[in-house]
Amino acid sequence: MKNYRDLTPEEMKQELAQLRHVYDQVKAEKLELNMARGKPAADQLDLSMPMLNDLNTLDDLISEDGTDCRNYGTLDGIIEAKKLIADLMEVKPENVFVGGNASLQLMYIMVANAWCFGIDGCQPWCRQGTVKFLCPVPGYDRHFRITEVFGIQLVNIPMHEDGPDMDLVEQYVNNDPTVKGIWCVPKYSNPDGYSYSDETVRRFAALKPAAKDFRIFWDNAYFFHHLDFDHPDVILNIMDECQKAGSPDLVYEFMSTSKMALPGASISAVITSPHNMDQLKHQISAQIISFDKVNQMRQVKFFKDPQHLAEHMKKHAALLLPKFQTVWDAFKELGDLGIARWTTPRGGYFISLYTLPGCAKRTVQLCKEAGVTLTGAGAAFPYGIDPEDSHIRIAPSYPSLDDLKKACRVVVLSVKIASLEKLIG
Amino acid sequence: MKNYRDLTPEEMKQELAQLRHVYDQVKAEKLELNMARGKPAADQLDLSMPMLNDLNTLDDLISEDGTDCRNYGTLDGIIEAKKLIADLMEVKPENVFVGGNASLQLMYIMVANAWCFGIDGCQPWCRQGTVKFLCPVPGYDRHFRITEVFGIQLVNIPMHEDGPDMDLVEQYVNNDPTVKGIWCVPKYSNPDGYSYSDETVRRFAALKPAAKDFRIFWDNAYFFHHLDFDHPDVILNIMDECQKAGSPDLVYEFMSTSKMALPGASISAVITSPHNMDQLKHQISAQIISFDKVNQMRQVKFFKDPQHLAEHMKKHAALLLPKFQTVWDAFKELGDLGIARWTTPRGGYFISLYTLPGCAKRTVQLCKEAGVTLTGAGAAFPYGIDPEDSHIRIAPSYPSLDDLKKACRVVVLSVKIASLEKLIG
Repeated sequence: MKNYRDLTPEEMKQELAQLRHVYDQVKAEKLELNMARGKPAADQLDLSMPMLNDLNTLDDLISEDGTDCRNYGTLDGIIEAKKLIADLMEVKPENVFVGGNASLQLMYIMVANAWCFGIDGCQPWCRQGTVKFLCPVPGYDRHFRITEVFGIQLVNIPMHEDGPDMDLVEQYVNNDPTVKGIWCVPKYSNPDGYSYSDETVRRFAALKPAAKDFRIFWDNAYFFHHLDFDHPDVILNIMDECQKAGSPDLVYEFMSTSKMALPGASISAVITSPHNMDQLKHQISAQIISFDKVNQMRQVKFFKDPQHLAEHMKKHAALLLPKFQTVWDAFKELGDLGIARWTTPRGGYFISLYTLPGCAKRTVQLCKEAGVTLTGAGAAFPYGIDPEDSHIRIAPSYPSLDDLKKACRVVVLSVKIASLEKLIG
Repeated sequence: MKNYRDLTPEEMKQELAQLRHVYDQVKAEKLELNMARGKPAADQLDLSMPMLNDLNTLDDLISEDGTDCRNYGTLDGIIEAKKLIADLMEVKPENVFVGGNASLQLMYIMVANAWCFGIDGCQPWCRQGTVKFLCPVPGYDRHFRITEVFGIQLVNIPMHEDGPDMDLVEQYVNNDPTVKGIWCVPKYSNPDGYSYSDETVRRFAALKPAAKDFRIFWDNAYFFHHLDFDHPDVILNIMDECQKAGSPDLVYEFMSTSKMALPGASISAVITSPHNMDQLKHQISAQIISFDKVNQMRQVKFFKDPQHLAEHMKKHAALLLPKFQTVWDAFKELGDLGIARWTTPRGGYFISLYTLPGCAKRTVQLCKEAGVTLTGAGAAFPYGIDPEDSHIRIAPSYPSLDDLKKACRVVVLSVKIASLEKLIG
């Protein structure tokens, strides 16, 4: 088949009629497939089942400093968990605050604390009138929602292969005192799968914010989530770079073991400077005495150290890579037709599919009507608005390989139909 | 020994000199005892150790509706956990939102949501100028702190044996639209151990708040925590009473399994009307995808139903009652001297000790210098200020019986010294 743009109007109509015929047949199959969220599949969860029975004796539950993990106390987490996370993230244990089963909640808490109580003696954001957050797009819908619910104004920043448009970031952050933060997924970004270049990380660390209460929200969610362990992406350590740049307090870094172990039953952490840590501990002590230290110990016993964890993550990769490959193989046909491009990350959980402008919503709708649920078109943009209406987030992890093949067939078919409808006009 | 008030000044001085001599001997023992917080002792925690290895197969982790507890999702908790908590608290599963390991965090979230986003379309509390909370005193310091950090004005309400002074509560709530909430521990209250009478509960349900966004914060923390299972306190069901009174949305009830299982690794719940539940779910969905469902299933498998749970709680009582008895036995001497009174609850975790006015701080200080840490004097009052300086919270659960005897000896000695110092003037 030729590139669709090279077809005559008549050829387009013929092709469209034929595709609609196939589409009706697919619809009759009454598929029920879901590629909407970045959920690990059951076989990935099975990898972590042994951790549920790792705590057998009282000895397993007494921390090296004598803390009984079963009782109240130890707000910032047991020392073993802090050390493990510090080793993974290449920081110091005193930089680590261990949270509950959701790094999202830690991000929310950091935004909410700034909004309610302020940062470093500045007025709380709720008392400052307009407050803005920079949102590299496409990005993670749950990040954007955290700031949206507080009425914070969300500003789109284009994402490139080496990270957000840093000229624009610098222009905003260094000049506009109402800009208080930026959402970053620096490695295998959600949804493009891009990793920030060294220059991008250094430019982040070198920011000179107009607002004293500006912070970088650095969600290092996919730090260990390589698809190809022989060629992993490597990014600079933001904590080190900020230290070198003389701005140690500039960043809140987040991580969790959700997509390493059991997503609903893991541990999370915020990593930051001792100065920020003091404020965090003071503020968070009003809402909790301690997070689940038994589960912290469970994770420590299971993962042990970065080497063991890497071995474990290779097993995840072995299950995930064929799924990504399946999507890429299916999409190849779209590239030949000149109606889509997509990303080919070396890690993370997502692929971005870019249709012709104005075709994303229609594609997602066609998929839905044929029984394939995708993330809503526009979801990866603040307020759910994709200015180009061209971005679709593909989450290949959850369905079986077989289901994924079926689903991709529907996606490809839907992109073709939506594109032809658009081209015909 | 006679009542101290009947001693001549000379007798008082003699007695004081003698007590100080004993006190110096005790100090030389360099004790390190802690009765500051309501922490279960290690032998109580041991009761729940089997729960850590109850989840063995995948079957154990699939909810009856097919939910895989290991993965993301199910914001309000698995149906089994909702049913268990509903059975315990005599409500319906749809009234139950299951949280993380801390009911304190759920309380904080409810206050924070009202402060940031408002209740039922009312202006957020942060935009309403003065906002007040009623605080029955003495009460739970962590409750008061939640509201204090938001700058909410805390109003003392005297506690009686049958609950808060309801004349005063009605006067405030029904007339003052800046009064937005009240902190209640309705059963075995912290720290007095009082349980609300039926009339008190009915008067709560019959409140006609001047503020549409007023809520009762009903922390039923000690619902199952009887010391004497043959003579448990019984309180009316606030959810039922509010329903009957035509105000189903008036209350947020809280509970947790913290002091039933492992305090740092348990589950919590907020119980409320379907209307309130909708708002809660909408607001909390911005910060978390789901709480730890694996741990929810762990609790369900272990506790099974209210009957099993009652058997388990009797084992706790068997360990706790002798500790309470030890304190009461030791305090008897103080009663004879006319310098203190104390509460004798049939459940919960605390005893209130009331010294002569102006003696509590000094008593706690004397204890501390002799190596016995008590909850800070005044801690049970908003802003840490006990207007009478007479209340001391005694938490007998954590020390061993032997340590408790030693600690009580120091408390008794310290009360005597502080009282004589005061009486001599």
